[in-house]
This record gives sequence, structure tokens and C-alpha cells, in this order.
Amino acid sequence: MRPPAPLSSAADTTRGSAVSHPRCYVELCTHLRDAATLGSVGSLLGWDQETYMPPAAAPFRAEQAAAIATLVHERQTSPRLGELIAECEADESLMAEGSETAANIREIRRDYDLATKLPGDLVAELARTGSQAQEAWKSARESNDFPAFAPWLEKMIALTRRKADCCGTPEGGERYDALLNEYEPGARAADIAEVFRPLRERLREFVRDVRENGEEPSDAPLKAKIKTGKQHKIGLAVLEAIGFDLKAGRLDVTTHPFCSGFAPGDTRLTTRYREQHFTDALYSTMHEAGHGLYEQGLPKTLPDESGVGLFGTPLAESISLGIHESQSRMWENFVGRSKSFWKWALPRIAEHTDALADCKAKDMFRAVNRVEPSLIRVEADEGTYNLHVMVRFEIERALLRGDLEVKDVPGVWNEMYREDLGVDVPDDKRGCLQDVHWSFGLVGYFPTYTLGNLYAAQFWEQIVQDIPDLEAGFAEGQFKPLLDWLREKIHRHGRRYRAAELCERITGKPLSPDPLMRHLERRVRPAYGLEPVGV
Amino acid sequence: MRPPAPLSSAADTTRGSAVSHPRCYVELCTHLRDAATLGSVGSLLGWDQETYMPPAAAPFRAEQAAAIATLVHERQTSPRLGELIAECEADESLMAEGSETAANIREIRRDYDLATKLPGDLVAELARTGSQAQEAWKSARESNDFPAFAPWLEKMIALTRRKADCCGTPEGGERYDALLNEYEPGARAADIAEVFRPLRERLREFVRDVRENGEEPSDAPLKAKIKTGKQHKIGLAVLEAIGFDLKAGRLDVTTHPFCSGFAPGDTRLTTRYREQHFTDALYSTMHEAGHGLYEQGLPKTLPDESGVGLFGTPLAESISLGIHESQSRMWENFVGRSKSFWKWALPRIAEHTDALADCKAKDMFRAVNRVEPSLIRVEADEGTYNLHVMVRFEIERALLRGDLEVKDVPGVWNEMYREDLGVDVPDDKRGCLQDVHWSFGLVGYFPTYTLGNLYAAQFWEQIVQDIPDLEAGFAEGQFKPLLDWLREKIHRHGRRYRAAELCERITGKPLSPDPLMRHLERRVRPAYGLEPVGV
Repeated sequence: MRPPAPLSSAADTTRGSAVSHPRCYVELCTHLRDAATLGSVGSLLGWDQETYMPPAAAPFRAEQAAAIATLVHERQTSPRLGELIAECEADESLMAEGSETAANIREIRRDYDLATKLPGDLVAELARTGSQAQEAWKSARESNDFPAFAPWLEKMIALTRRKADCCGTPEGGERYDALLNEYEPGARAADIAEVFRPLRERLREFVRDVRENGEEPSDAPLKAKIKTGKQHKIGLAVLEAIGFDLKAGRLDVTTHPFCSGFAPGDTRLTTRYREQHFTDALYSTMHEAGHGLYEQGLPKTLPDESGVGLFGTPLAESISLGIHESQSRMWENFVGRSKSFWKWALPRIAEHTDALADCKAKDMFRAVNRVEPSLIRVEADEGTYNLHVMVRFEIERALLRGDLEVKDVPGVWNEMYREDLGVDVPDDKRGCLQDVHWSFGLVGYFPTYTLGNLYAAQFWEQIVQDIPDLEAGFAEGQFKPLLDWLREKIHRHGRRYRAAELCERITGKPLSPDPLMRHLERRVRPAYGLEPVGV
Repeated sequence: MRPPAPLSSAADTTRGSAVSHPRCYVELCTHLRDAATLGSVGSLLGWDQETYMPPAAAPFRAEQAAAIATLVHERQTSPRLGELIAECEADESLMAEGSETAANIREIRRDYDLATKLPGDLVAELARTGSQAQEAWKSARESNDFPAFAPWLEKMIALTRRKADCCGTPEGGERYDALLNEYEPGARAADIAEVFRPLRERLREFVRDVRENGEEPSDAPLKAKIKTGKQHKIGLAVLEAIGFDLKAGRLDVTTHPFCSGFAPGDTRLTTRYREQHFTDALYSTMHEAGHGLYEQGLPKTLPDESGVGLFGTPLAESISLGIHESQSRMWENFVGRSKSFWKWALPRIAEHTDALADCKAKDMFRAVNRVEPSLIRVEADEGTYNLHVMVRFEIERALLRGDLEVKDVPGVWNEMYREDLGVDVPDDKRGCLQDVHWSFGLVGYFPTYTLGNLYAAQFWEQIVQDIPDLEAGFAEGQFKPLLDWLREKIHRHGRRYRAAELCERITGKPLSPDPLMRHLERRVRPAYGLEPVGV
């Protein structure tokens, strides 16, 4: 087992300067820690609900969750918190340019303003209508009846517009940015669109090219049958190898895999198993482990002698959904779909089952890198996934601007799928009704999936430069150099930097579609028996 | 699976009269429900800590638990609650003699007074010193060093005296009664002593008699090896058969078995397995299931149209530790160690394993009813268990009175073990250091174990009268008549009656040692090949 080093080493680094702090800062951190402590209890309620809660407990679980959420919200919006922030902002010793405390206070201010800008009745209305709309969405999807969902989607779009207006459009930006800001602080729709536009063109062309000119890999290795108990043991072995601390975390089974990084020393992953297509579970586990490694690497320290601990403050939180997703996609795709990973993994799997006895690393590498345009986002491969995301980004942005009416969503959706993915959408349930997000007001969330892939690729090029023989090491089970790099460059900083700033600090360049395209060329073309081009 | 009938049927009965209530009563119940909702979250934290929490989460779990406990305590002692109780007490429509609301308000008053009588610094001191004393006890027990623990025990006894004085000695009673009252409302040490005194004499004689004159049963059947996975399946089958609703509950594994009835629809049991001595796990499971059936039978209703739900109020809570224990011991011993239970159980077990293929119900009956004086309470059999309890009752009562000094505890303990159980205590770690209770101030708790056995026996004689062929039914898997009886007579009333009152209502007599002695005669003598006497 790995020692529980990451937390304390991160803590040491961050604590270095935190010897003595003004009273207001100590009190501010204490206030936030109290809120986060209750928040972590809410996370446990959520985790338990998905894992072990008996079914008859469900109705009352909603009461428990609401009680905790109310207490957390009270603390996040309390006037006392506002006073403490203002006191800290007025204290020059805390606000020195580039200091850790200044970064922390800046982000605390951001959260407080966001939390207090929304009037209580709008929050309640979003929750209530969102809950009803989600039910409407479920039954509309089941019965393939978009018109039944349309009025609910209209309501939710209207409410998210109101929400955006309360938050305020940033200068020179658009209404959509106010929503995006919740998930990807500081990001702008226009900037994203500028990266997405060339990416879409190049992905479409890339997918067409490999499929037309390459030799389609066999998916036979994926069809091997492995008992779920054995898959679980294999999953745990992979977690241990890549450095997920199982003394400070768990792996359980749920319908939808997730990672919950509740609290100091407590990060829980879930996955799901089927006997065939064992790589589905393996990649779910590695994806969630990527999130989990980030959570375990955040400096969630408890108070030291100075009275300050970072748990509960932005310096112990993840930067954005995009950066979080960059971590999960990196371990899932950049590591997990590499040939060298399979050189290491196949002998490990052979300790549990002989189902893959005849399979070579090259065969697995090819099988897990197949590219095939399809209808459903969550089942899409690495080559086509971002095309799905970009359809949603375009549509939700147009809805918010008022350039598109809800009733026209299916038509536009289907046209874009034909255009971008080359597939005909046979019905709305496999079309614009497939995702839950919009039904409860998650607008501005989708693009973070693709941002995650883009950040992962751009970081990766830097990592490969910084760590010689990185991939060769995977074949020997050496994943620690990669984790150490991520800890040092990304995890330990929490929200000290915004995503775009972190990207520039690490890679020296703004976000670009080039690294992701280069990654796909290097990865997918060989899987199709083609020479990489443009590398 | 059983339908989730118990909760709703209990609810229907209790709700009957609850059509319209004064505003103060509605608000009172709402206030208590809010506290109980948070309390149930605290219970989940405790359950998770014992079952699935990763070890590195332990330090922060204490913070989470303390945060929730503080919030619950605030609500339980808030001046607003005091006002609401006073308003209800002044409302004649609520206080009609013998009414459900009057009983509820009486018990709410009792809880509030208890909670507010203790000054905050004493509560904190008890928690702090108790936590240190518990650590001191652990290491003293390990190193068999009573003198190292003695000063801590002195401190804890002094603190529990202060606690008793804050609560107030009931008229004509003694200080000990104030402590007892927390666990066994309304009970008096003098009354208990009056029942315990003849019980001790008769138990000593009974144990000596069967062991001298009977034929010792073979314990061979207990040594059968059954894999723990199979034991778990057997345990679940027993739970289902006796009526524990697994859709509203669970069975997991922990170091120390427990039952946690957190919330409406959520009652969780735990047990522990060893490959040999499979009956240890089986009886742990049945014991906790007895507690769990009580919890599932309490009318933990959520608000109906009248705005009143009983969850959170005394009417949805158990009467006392003694009555709770009567339920667990009834299923464990009165049901689980009967010959007819084994007639039913052996074929069920044979569906999972052939480890008991050669074993007859009579052999199992005899093996599980062996009587053997021993040193350790938690390992004691039904015949000697209460002798262990009474030693502790005598000693703690004398300590509280000042009739015994802490330094003299080991000597008195060992003398009583020689006298009552006929065993020589070789060292304090197998003597007066074996139990954790005193180290954190649980004085007045021990006698409830024996009260549970006495209540179980006295109820049992009534049950056997009320349900013809009760035990014969067990052999056919008919446990529902028993559960229905318990639901009707005990569970659905919550704390409407005090334990002594309930006993008189059900059996027409005050608590007596006779039924328990008759039960042991009928149970243990045949296991030793002797005719029952005095029945």
C-alpha cells in the first residue's frame, strides 16, 4: 500500500508560509470549514443513497439531504461570512500580489458573491421546477415524446436566463458566460467557440480518414467473459498500481459510476460491472480514479498551530469541472488506452483469469482505440466524443441567446448529427432526449467535458517532455512519476490559479486544439494500421 | 419478501385520532422532527464508520459527528422548545388523561428537562474526561493494570455523581436512580434490587444443580465449519423468515454487532462471522434483529394532512433499554434456542451447506443451551449471564453511594465472582477491567440487560397463553403470530407507557423473577436430560 503521503506532502508545501495569520483570516477559514464539514456529511448521504441505502429509506433520505443542504447554504450566504471576507480584503498582509492568502480570499469572494446573488425564491424555483422537469424528461424519453418535454425545457431555459441575469454577464461577454462561470470559472463562450470550431472540422475529417483508409481493429478481446468478482479484484489492483490510496478511499458498485471526494482522508469511487465488455468497468474505474487522485492530492488540511487549515477553502478545492475532467480522462485514455499500459495490465489480469490468455497488448491497444460514430454520447469513443459535446454546446448557447426555439431543438440536433457524425438519428430518445442535464438546469456544463479532453492533451505534451520514458515506464507498472507530476503541477494548488492561467503556467501556451488532434493521430492511426501524420 | 406493512399499519392505528391539532402541537412535533432528522444523519455517520469508512477518514469523522451532535443538542435544548412544551401543557385539548398527546407531551417534557438540567460545562467535561478515561481503560486492560485506571474511574464516578445531582434524586429514591432514569425511565434501584436478590440466589442454585445432576450436552454441533459467505445467506434467510423487512433495512459485518434504527424505512443490523461456532453469528444476527424488529415496528410516521408525524417524538421511540433488550433477547433466546426453531432451521441451513447433515434438532437444542460459569459477561450463556450483570449492578450502586472505594473494586469483584459464579478471577483484565461502560460514565446501564431478560420471560408467558401452539408453529416457520403480538402489544405504542406500566398492562403483574426461572427450568433442564421442576 502507498503511504498517505500526498495529503501531508501537499500540506507541508502549502503550510510553509502559514505560520501566523490575522484573526479574521483564521475565523474566515473556520467558518468555511464548518460549512464544508456539513457539506461532506451531505456527500455521505448521497454516496450511501447510491450504494447501500435500503429502498424504503428513499423518501426520508430527501428530507435528510434537504436539512443538511439548508444548513450548508445558510453558512455559505451568512452576513458574517461577508463581513469576514471584507475584513480580510482590507488587510494588506493578506492581500499581497500573488500570495496564497490573496488567491484564497479572491476565490472565497467569488463563491460568496455567486451564492448571495441568487435570490432565495429563484433557488427554490430552480430546485422545484428542475425536479418536476426531470421527471417529465424521464417519461418523455421513455415514450420518445419530445413535445411532452418541450414546455418543461422552455421553463428551465427561462429560469436559467433569470439565473444568468442575477449572476451578471461579464464585461464584453454574453449571458451564457454567467452560467459557464459556475462550472468553469472565468471561461467565455466566445473563447471556447474559437477552440471548438477548428476542432470540429479536424475531428470530422480525422474520423472519416481513419475509417476510410485504415484497417478496422477487431473488438474480439473486449468480448472476453470475466466474472464481476474478478473484475473487481482487477480494478482494485489497477487502483493500487496507479497510486489511488485505498486506505483513504473505496471502490463500490452503483448504477452510474461516480467519484465523491467528501472529506480529508475519504474519497470514494464507484463503478459498474458486466461480464462481457470488461473494459467498460475498467475504464469507468480508471476515469473515476483520475477524479479521485485529484481529490486525494488536494491539500485538504485541518487546522495546524496557526489555527488555519485549508479544508473548506478554495485552496483545497478543484479548479473547475474542465480541469477535474482532464484528470479523469488522462488516466482513462492517455494512460489506460496506451499500448504500454496493456503490456503491464495483461499479466496482472492473467493472475485472476485466463480469459485473455491469447490476447496480446497490441490487440488490446487496437480494440480499445476503435473509432465509430454513434448516437449516444456516454458510449462514444475518444475520437468522436467531442463531436457529441459540441452539438450540445452550440444548441444550448443558441437557446440562451434566443437564436433557437425549444420546438426546433430536435431538428437542429438531428441535422448536426448527420453533418458532424454522419449518423441518422432515428428518434429523439436516441437524440436530443438522451441527456438529463438540461432538465434540471445544467446549461453551460457540457463544454467542460471537451475542455477536459483538451487540457489533458495539452498537459500530456508537457508531461512527456518533462518525464523521459514516461510511457515505457507504464509497461513496468511505473505510474508514480506521472502522479507526482500531477500532484506538483496541478493538485496541490487547489484553486490558486484559474484553469486558463494554470494551462499557460504549465504549458506556456493558451488552450489549443492541436495537442488533442496530435494525440488522436498518434493513438488512433496506429490502431488502424496507419502511419501517424502531422506529428 | 414481506410487504412493508408494519410501519403503515402502526401508523394507521396511531393516526386515527390525530386529525386536527392545535398549532403549538404541530410546531412542537415539527421542531422535534427537525432534531431527529439531524440525529438520524449522525446515526448514518456512526454506521458508516463501523462498516465502510476508509481508515484514513477516522480523524475527520470525529469532526463531522461533533458538528451534527452540536446541532442536535441545540435543537433539543432550545428555549423555543421549552416554550412550545409549556404552551402544549396549558392546552386542555391536548392533555386529556390517558390520551396519546398527553403521553407524548409528558415524555417530551421529561427529555427536555433532562437535556437542559445538565450544565454545558458538565456535558463537555463528561465527554472530554470520558474520552480520556476510555483510552486509559484500553491500555489498562491491555496491560492488566487496574491501578493505572483507578484515578480515571474515580474521576468518572465523581462526574456521574455530579450528573446525578443535576438531574435530581427522585423523592424517596437514591442518587443512583437519577442515572438509571436515563436508560430505564422511572425505574428505582431499590425495586430492581428486590427483584435481583432472589433471582441471584435461585440462579446460583439452578446452575449448580443442572451441572451436578445433569448430563452435559455435547458442543460438537457448534464446531461445524460453515463458510462465512454461506453463514451470511443463512442469516438473511432467518431475517426474512422472522419478519425483518430487508427493503427497509440491511445486514452488514462489523467488529461489534449492533442495530441502528436511524430513520423511517432505515434500520441497519450488523453481525460478525467466524467459520467455526456459526451460532455466534446466528445469535448475534437474531439478537440485533430483535432490536431491529422493534425499531421497524415503532410508528415513525412523517407528517400527514394534520401536519403531525410521530417520527422524532417519544411516541415513535423505544420505551427503555430494558424493553429494547427484551425484544432482542426474546428472538435470540426464547425463539432461537428453542427446539422447534431448530426443527425449522436445520433444513433451511441444509440448503446452503451439508456441514450439519448429521445433526438433529435435539442435538442443536442441547448444544445451544449448555450452561457454564465463566469469566466474561459477553460470552456468557443464558443461565449465567444475569449473575455477571448483578455483580456490576451491586458494585456501581455501592460506588455511587460511597459504600465502596474504587481501589477496592477488584477485591470485591473477585469475591463476588467466586461466590456467585464459582470461578476464580485470574487477573483484572478478565475481571473488573473487562467492560468499557464505566470508563465513559455509563453507570446505571448494566441492570437494563437483566431487566431485558426478565421482561422477555414475563412477556413470553403471556404470549404462550395468548397464542396457542406458538412454539409448534416455529417448526413450520410461522413466526408472524409472535411478531404481530409484539407489534400490537409493545412496538406500536412507542413511549406511551413506562416499562413497569407496560409490563402490568400486558401481564397483569409487576416484574418478577419467577417467569425467567421457569423459562430456564423448561429450557435448560431438558437440555441436560433432566425433568423440568417447579413448573
